[in-house]
Amino acid sequence: MNPLHWRSLPPRPPGPSDSFAVSAGRRSLLRAAAAAAGGVLFGRRRAVAAESSPPAEPQWSKYIGPGVDDRPYGIPSKFERDVIRRDVPWLTATGQSSVSFTPLQDLQGIITPNGLFFERYHAGRADVDPRQHRLLIHGLVERPLVLTLDDIVRFPSTSRIYFIECPANGGMEWRGAQLNSLQFTHGMIGCAQWTGVKLSTLLDEAGVKKEATWVLVEGADAARMDRSLPLEKCLDDCLVAYGQNGEALRPEQGYPLRLIVPGWEGSVNIKWLRRIKLGDRPWFSREETSKYTDLMADGKSRGFTFVNEAKSVVTFPCPEKPLSAPGLYEIRGLAWSGRGKIERVDVSADGGINWSPAQLHEPILSKALTRFTMPWRWDGGPALVQSRAVDETGYVQPSIAQLRKVRGLNSIYHNNSIQTWQIKPDGSVFDVQLG
Amino acid sequence: MNPLHWRSLPPRPPGPSDSFAVSAGRRSLLRAAAAAAGGVLFGRRRAVAAESSPPAEPQWSKYIGPGVDDRPYGIPSKFERDVIRRDVPWLTATGQSSVSFTPLQDLQGIITPNGLFFERYHAGRADVDPRQHRLLIHGLVERPLVLTLDDIVRFPSTSRIYFIECPANGGMEWRGAQLNSLQFTHGMIGCAQWTGVKLSTLLDEAGVKKEATWVLVEGADAARMDRSLPLEKCLDDCLVAYGQNGEALRPEQGYPLRLIVPGWEGSVNIKWLRRIKLGDRPWFSREETSKYTDLMADGKSRGFTFVNEAKSVVTFPCPEKPLSAPGLYEIRGLAWSGRGKIERVDVSADGGINWSPAQLHEPILSKALTRFTMPWRWDGGPALVQSRAVDETGYVQPSIAQLRKVRGLNSIYHNNSIQTWQIKPDGSVFDVQLG
Repeated sequence: MNPLHWRSLPPRPPGPSDSFAVSAGRRSLLRAAAAAAGGVLFGRRRAVAAESSPPAEPQWSKYIGPGVDDRPYGIPSKFERDVIRRDVPWLTATGQSSVSFTPLQDLQGIITPNGLFFERYHAGRADVDPRQHRLLIHGLVERPLVLTLDDIVRFPSTSRIYFIECPANGGMEWRGAQLNSLQFTHGMIGCAQWTGVKLSTLLDEAGVKKEATWVLVEGADAARMDRSLPLEKCLDDCLVAYGQNGEALRPEQGYPLRLIVPGWEGSVNIKWLRRIKLGDRPWFSREETSKYTDLMADGKSRGFTFVNEAKSVVTFPCPEKPLSAPGLYEIRGLAWSGRGKIERVDVSADGGINWSPAQLHEPILSKALTRFTMPWRWDGGPALVQSRAVDETGYVQPSIAQLRKVRGLNSIYHNNSIQTWQIKPDGSVFDVQLG
Repeated sequence: MNPLHWRSLPPRPPGPSDSFAVSAGRRSLLRAAAAAAGGVLFGRRRAVAAESSPPAEPQWSKYIGPGVDDRPYGIPSKFERDVIRRDVPWLTATGQSSVSFTPLQDLQGIITPNGLFFERYHAGRADVDPRQHRLLIHGLVERPLVLTLDDIVRFPSTSRIYFIECPANGGMEWRGAQLNSLQFTHGMIGCAQWTGVKLSTLLDEAGVKKEATWVLVEGADAARMDRSLPLEKCLDDCLVAYGQNGEALRPEQGYPLRLIVPGWEGSVNIKWLRRIKLGDRPWFSREETSKYTDLMADGKSRGFTFVNEAKSVVTFPCPEKPLSAPGLYEIRGLAWSGRGKIERVDVSADGGINWSPAQLHEPILSKALTRFTMPWRWDGGPALVQSRAVDETGYVQPSIAQLRKVRGLNSIYHNNSIQTWQIKPDGSVFDVQLG
């Protein structure tokens, strides 16, 4: 396998796009070169070069396009119109208290574009006027504060790349539902560079009283989503963020202010943040009692299980991106941990019998997505592709069987188990569960 | 200055947004807290709390917003409508061979959003059909290749964060033109995570002949922009990229394929890349002879000055973001070098007489934007704010006077000089040149 003979890539089977290319004709230059290249990398090329009709220049090489004043804020190519967030209409009673999933199957790198960052809210997308918005800090503090957005932007700023994962990501898999889609099994995650002020800076400004141990954080949307957080985490690495990937937060991500609680379940990263209250015990709000707890086999619920434990998933191949023919491929995926950096990712093609370490790609950042790849020659037989993340604490991503042994079948949240993609002989890919 | 007493931030002068907030009323919770907070951080708060009209709930706290199916591809808040790329209509004869500038004054962090990444092209924005597009590799190679986008995506992939800066960035400043705008003096730069295949992988696939030393790279747009590059750079860190910040390249950035030549002038990062030809000397194309050369004082031109040397700029304060009143601020800026990592950035508030080292923020990546900040107490007097970058080779960003001494006044390109922002007593900020 090393050195890689990429030139032995197999010919791809003819598809609609190929016949389109042929019928559209070719430039003479390309045609001559294709004749020279024929049979080396792609035997099929010879047929293309042998087209007898004169080559046509594509439109974009002949005509001048629109100018710089055409799109002051750019949008994707029309050929990318299928790369969108998608929701599952039957999953929730309304689209206003629902989720849309990030199309991980089409994305690359570790940055999730703002337009494709998954959405989760309980009362629709709030469109907040930043001039009217205020952040209140009160409770067990020396100096209650009411801050404008301008006030907050003026404080010392920090920019950090962190993932946010909804604790329900993969929740439908607990009992074996197979959505057969990377977008729907893992698409409640995104990663961005967040810019804002450290929450500890604002709390220092307010002056935290000695008896304070917990913090209530609350959103300004109609759901008034609120959660309790231990003060220790708030003083550690939390951000009150106004920037996402260079620009202002998007409305669906909490514009103009959201809390970033690095590595902790998405639901505590309160959007449209309007209130921070210091207290000496958790509030046991509806959203941390009736929701976002883990119902165990014995009927008791585990609460305040905040951390997104180490997890990973193979993003190619996947149900949306099957294999075309036997040959050499690059298995690609993402790994992350709410406890720090990813230390290692192992990949298996036989359902976990044999594992090989994947290559991790820089930058490897704490509580951020980390990219991994591994070359793989598919022989055309059935295969079970898996990835297994290990983080810097030594924690190893469990199988779904291991997780069920501890947690039972009642859970919705915090499924960080190993994903299995079954490759069928025709190259199609399916979501399956082993054992 | 240390520890910082941020609580001594001065009251801001009342502005339109404040009166708007008052007239809109306040929530009772906020009102009570504001009364408690009155006079500590912002004395003005007391007046707000004393409003006698009953507080009104904002719309977004009362009514449920649109659901997850509303925007499959998200867009910014309507309150951010002024954060856009802008062009200078008188700068070029047409908008089709022109430039639009990134609004650096409104951005944070090191990632430039794809919708705001500056545009530069010579024949408009080409809208290329990825199914029809081909990349030809020929000339002094063993095996000429014609690759489809699917072929290219299948090769081993890599993702890297790099800046791209047009060599004409700041070009109007050579002779002292003062555009009085951060967007127009420095906005021909952006930074993104690019995903693609290393050019060296493709060249290895084609088999480079021993006598090859130079590479011609050519775009598929109507301008057929082409440039010559030394083979050594092509085998080092160049990428044939299809991804930008997680998603496909945008049309104006070369969709579906562009060359990334890390740290080298933007014009060699060929967009809509369709051809790579290996040869044994540069081609001296129009775009590297009549353009993109440095006309020296003696009338001779320097060609092939590819590298973006170390540079930095203060992004706050700047002409678009003045100071509101004397007090404590955070000076913020960006630094970059085409030769590697930023080692240090110094900041001066007195036109370069005294310098202090700024704080550099992680991640500090080679040939990427690096963020720096420094707390600064503005006493209300006149000030001349500058930043000076030093890269890991020890190169120190020069003053415009030092640069003119070597290069004369004829140049358009490669102005990496220190920017001076003059602060006037009313807090307004102007683009000036010293000495």
